[in-house]
Amino acid sequence: MQVPFVKMHGLGNDFVVLDARVGDVPEMTARLAAALADRKTGIGCDQLILIEPSDSATFRMRIFNADGGEVEACGNATRAVGLLHGAPATIETLGGLLSSNPADGGVAVDMGEPRFDWNAIPLAYAMDTLSIPVGWEDLDAPSAVNVGNPHVVFFVPDYAAVEIERLGPLIEHDPLFPARINVNFATVTSRDAIRLRVWERGVGETRACGTGACATAIAAMRRGLTDRKVTVSLEGGDLTIEWGAGNRILMTGPAVESFRGTFDPAAYGVAG
Amino acid sequence: MQVPFVKMHGLGNDFVVLDARVGDVPEMTARLAAALADRKTGIGCDQLILIEPSDSATFRMRIFNADGGEVEACGNATRAVGLLHGAPATIETLGGLLSSNPADGGVAVDMGEPRFDWNAIPLAYAMDTLSIPVGWEDLDAPSAVNVGNPHVVFFVPDYAAVEIERLGPLIEHDPLFPARINVNFATVTSRDAIRLRVWERGVGETRACGTGACATAIAAMRRGLTDRKVTVSLEGGDLTIEWGAGNRILMTGPAVESFRGTFDPAAYGVAG
Repeated sequence: MQVPFVKMHGLGNDFVVLDARVGDVPEMTARLAAALADRKTGIGCDQLILIEPSDSATFRMRIFNADGGEVEACGNATRAVGLLHGAPATIETLGGLLSSNPADGGVAVDMGEPRFDWNAIPLAYAMDTLSIPVGWEDLDAPSAVNVGNPHVVFFVPDYAAVEIERLGPLIEHDPLFPARINVNFATVTSRDAIRLRVWERGVGETRACGTGACATAIAAMRRGLTDRKVTVSLEGGDLTIEWGAGNRILMTGPAVESFRGTFDPAAYGVAG
Repeated sequence: MQVPFVKMHGLGNDFVVLDARVGDVPEMTARLAAALADRKTGIGCDQLILIEPSDSATFRMRIFNADGGEVEACGNATRAVGLLHGAPATIETLGGLLSSNPADGGVAVDMGEPRFDWNAIPLAYAMDTLSIPVGWEDLDAPSAVNVGNPHVVFFVPDYAAVEIERLGPLIEHDPLFPARINVNFATVTSRDAIRLRVWERGVGETRACGTGACATAIAAMRRGLTDRKVTVSLEGGDLTIEWGAGNRILMTGPAVESFRGTFDPAAYGVAG
């Protein structure tokens, strides 16, 4: 048995994409996802993406982290599967119903509606999410927003100077966040431009986090710091985020196919 | 244009193998090798292996490190291409003429003859290579041997306790080694068993270094510390090294095919 796959990346955030609609795909387990994600002995990726048939959308997208755990949302992966589909699509995910369209400069994805209720983030108890009245060392009060997954956003004078390796895990594991949290450190440089670094929950600092860019743009707009359309610059590249009609978040940016291949599940401990 | 490749590993040391005999392969440059070796935006590997026709052997093997530089020898890669060939083969390399055979437990490779002359290592000036009369901190005098590439071997009471991240680069860049050097820290545990960690020149500590296992076994045999056939245990697994007839080094160990695929050189900045 040979299972086909496509290797893709969005701003350097890389994926192995398996499409259960067009080829035989073995049942996905945490162990198999982790084995395939291993960069030395597997195919290697940040996330393994599984495309499945859907009753309510063009297809269903499931996302597994490199440790094998399934997660709700990944903005970069959503653009990648949008590119792979090559036509407008609706996408069922654990984080909600999304949609994608081919666009100038890559793929435009409707990432759904942001949620601001404290228990939708989730936070441990009721409080204002525009400006969480909690301080971590000398950081100003952050905003919290859920864009399919939970984010906290700090606006800082100099994003490059933040001690992210020390502060990231400290905040990620704060008891205020019962589902833990993705931690964004942003500097607004104009009405339509933000510089951003993201500490991803369970991963660490990454070169580009699509949902972090969405969450940060929404928080900046909600605070009146930017217009309703901004370019968010991450180490891996730029994303354009628009908070548009019907309260939807529109993210536009690149996705790239790196190579295609096949693997034998028997080589990864799965009976054929 | 689609270029076929095979992704393989030997004890976790991983390779992208391109075979110019069976498919169109673009001219290899340091830039293309580095782009393909990138684990996020390329295929990802420690070394890129290029198989080419040979006038003097079954095929020629060229080895490019992830930084794009071409190197002389790689024991794990030699087993991998031996597995891929699937039959006895002679292999032309920059480090000399090798040969491989399918064997119990993987592939047996004739890694050629060890060289002990000071200027074949190379060292900066004439000295005994069985016991180099130079000390680094509290380490005993090491042996030096060239097995296609240059190695220095320290025998220590406890290989696990060595401060390899500090000592490795210190020794690698010592002016005594004009071509720099691979640094081995070994503990002999019986007449036929050695535990080994290797600091690889230009790379750092790795989970398994095939030429390091050969060099260390030869140094131990030359000092009378072991018999002429030993199992060398590295973090990534075990290799059997025999110093056999005609002064040849025979290395036996596993190699694995992880997956196969194709890539478009245009996606890596190469005209099709």
